Amino acid sequence: MNTVKAELLTIGDEILYGQIVDTNSQWMGVELASIGVQVIRKTTVGDKESEILTAFAEAESRADVVLITGGLGPTSDDLTKPCLARYFDCEIRIHPEALEEVTAFFKQRGRALTELNRQQAALPVCCQKLTNPVGTAPGMWFERNGKVFVSMPGVPHEMKRMMQDLVIPRIRQTFNPPAIIHQIINTAGIGESFLAEKISSWEKALPEHIRLAYLPNLGGVKLRLTATGSREDAIRADLRKLVEQIQPLAGEYIFGYNEDPLEVVIGRTLQERKLTLSVAESCTGGFVSHLITSVPGSSSYFLGSMIPYAYEIKMRQLGVRPETLESYGAVSEPTIVEMANLVRAKFNADIGVATSGIAGPGGATTEKPVGTVWIAYSDKHHTVTKKLQLSNDRMINIRLASVHVLNLIRTSLPKTV
Amino acid sequence: MNTVKAELLTIGDEILYGQIVDTNSQWMGVELASIGVQVIRKTTVGDKESEILTAFAEAESRADVVLITGGLGPTSDDLTKPCLARYFDCEIRIHPEALEEVTAFFKQRGRALTELNRQQAALPVCCQKLTNPVGTAPGMWFERNGKVFVSMPGVPHEMKRMMQDLVIPRIRQTFNPPAIIHQIINTAGIGESFLAEKISSWEKALPEHIRLAYLPNLGGVKLRLTATGSREDAIRADLRKLVEQIQPLAGEYIFGYNEDPLEVVIGRTLQERKLTLSVAESCTGGFVSHLITSVPGSSSYFLGSMIPYAYEIKMRQLGVRPETLESYGAVSEPTIVEMANLVRAKFNADIGVATSGIAGPGGATTEKPVGTVWIAYSDKHHTVTKKLQLSNDRMINIRLASVHVLNLIRTSLPKTV
Repeated sequence: MNTVKAELLTIGDEILYGQIVDTNSQWMGVELASIGVQVIRKTTVGDKESEILTAFAEAESRADVVLITGGLGPTSDDLTKPCLARYFDCEIRIHPEALEEVTAFFKQRGRALTELNRQQAALPVCCQKLTNPVGTAPGMWFERNGKVFVSMPGVPHEMKRMMQDLVIPRIRQTFNPPAIIHQIINTAGIGESFLAEKISSWEKALPEHIRLAYLPNLGGVKLRLTATGSREDAIRADLRKLVEQIQPLAGEYIFGYNEDPLEVVIGRTLQERKLTLSVAESCTGGFVSHLITSVPGSSSYFLGSMIPYAYEIKMRQLGVRPETLESYGAVSEPTIVEMANLVRAKFNADIGVATSGIAGPGGATTEKPVGTVWIAYSDKHHTVTKKLQLSNDRMINIRLASVHVLNLIRTSLPKTV
Repeated sequence: MNTVKAELLTIGDEILYGQIVDTNSQWMGVELASIGVQVIRKTTVGDKESEILTAFAEAESRADVVLITGGLGPTSDDLTKPCLARYFDCEIRIHPEALEEVTAFFKQRGRALTELNRQQAALPVCCQKLTNPVGTAPGMWFERNGKVFVSMPGVPHEMKRMMQDLVIPRIRQTFNPPAIIHQIINTAGIGESFLAEKISSWEKALPEHIRLAYLPNLGGVKLRLTATGSREDAIRADLRKLVEQIQPLAGEYIFGYNEDPLEVVIGRTLQERKLTLSVAESCTGGFVSHLITSVPGSSSYFLGSMIPYAYEIKMRQLGVRPETLESYGAVSEPTIVEMANLVRAKFNADIGVATSGIAGPGGATTEKPVGTVWIAYSDKHHTVTKKLQLSNDRMINIRLASVHVLNLIRTSLPKTV
């Protein structure tokens, strides 16, 4: 079984200088993986002939398929087409069908064809034209010695359309690649190294055709299994078995098996179980509510929040007892318990959650350094609290504490509320 | 004046497969351009030793500085460190200072060091350690034959901190690139093309050694002037003159001359004028409060917020009159005026602001399509409202509306309140 190897080549100074973010190659990586083509390298070079020609030769030496985006515009700094003509040693001529297409494109928009536009219909005679139904620059498909070069426009929606309609089917037809399947295992509430220890026996026993990657993000770690094989059903079965086997080792930290973030998973649970949520957040300053309301449809379970940032507001608006604040301080277990219970009662919600802490850089005391955060969950059955010791960085504390709150909702929801 | 050439090398299967978007290299491209270092190529390779070693050699042959991100985690799929040790031909040993740092990092979080964590303090003996104050993997700085290799973590906030604090100053020191000075002109409340029209005469008259970049972001456009020259004082004077000349053309949209975002600028004004702020946000769901509280010290002027997401909560908790909601709906001028006035009164603040709108995708009507948002500002002198027609995208609507609220605070603050 031969793996088909692809290299992605992006051409343009604007990407090197950081003036635009290259999102094309990420999308292409996903599409290619889904048909079992393995991207082995991504390269970006500037608008310079020598750099482009060198990159062509290097890519050809490594990959079976070279997918090129960018540098197809009508202006003089666009060099992809002349470079390809030179690399494949053939001349550029007006392609009659391409000329019809670009003429029709402008006519439909009520505009006349300029000489610059006309030149977009000129193609190296050794390539096959790929029609661009949503733009003016056609794509190009070259084949030589069993290797394929494809040139596509850099404009994302033009590239995507061409990839989906023409390039992907043609790559499948040409190479008949093996199946590759990815399985995500999404965890929260445990750091990368702690998770790695818990699942080390499972990891060591992984069969050779399945690879594991740890993808850490704030507050969680995404595990990605990549399985390769000739029979899709067989590798799907292998992945299912591995998902079962990881349960006794790390099941409590797993919140999902796809790309959905925690707020989407929790939202779905609340919606299914017809539960409503309210939030009292102090140190997180609105970020918990923001994560929750970033989910479309969250208004069906999220009633609202109180952000009692000032000491005064904690008492006057939320109703925390002055004695509690005076005896224990705002960042304390008794205060956080009252906050969660009060917001639940005031908003008449099934669940109340709360945060109070020292986000930093100011506000720390000896017993309560920056990064000290109390969080709480409350429903009619029970109240759960947790003390966190986070970092020295204000934004990280806000984000981490917010993800911890979401995870606390997930782990504290009783089977029936 | 020699140009310093840099190559960016990203290591990780997850980027090749498109499972995460590489935003690091875009950010690095901008930062390097700002100190006069030219990025000539960007390369991404997978977690495979042979590929990584080849990429090192290729990059060294082309560039003066090779900046590597990723592959530094504690797990077995992270190969950057062993590859660098092999490439620079030296062994890996526990670095005593790095061990102290990683131990302190875990101690602060109340957690014990595992063996995997301990190994993060092991470094090739031929490199200089770069401290990572916000993570566990130190960076590495290698020098050989006048070329520099730098390895940094792939986690964006860890990489950015290390770049800004250590790598950028060190590159400047090592290569002494020409004087380059940037002048930011930060605007809000006007789109890129409208701004470009207003300042076109100014832009056309820019001298050759000064370049202008439009850096649009949600809700505003940052103008960046980049001046290059041998004498720093002369180019500083040129920039000062240009800042003066732009005032009559676009002064009303300019809120600052550095990287400080609008929330920092507003925070400073409120603090100086001893004014307090409260927020009632519905469709923005906490994001306005989050922006405000992302600023250290915001507790001195921000009292708190109410997020009355549900209709019920708008009445019961905030006190919007049922007649207003019934006659005009939640997304209306009369409702938004009540919301801003009520939150100001309830929280006993000098200023109250409010948002109510259709973030989407649900909730639209014929008269109020997705993207319709009302915002209001209220102080004891006046109430100012604004109706926005934003986009079809929920997250963009939330973010754009929030920036509009901040800009409304900036433009509505009377000289004396």
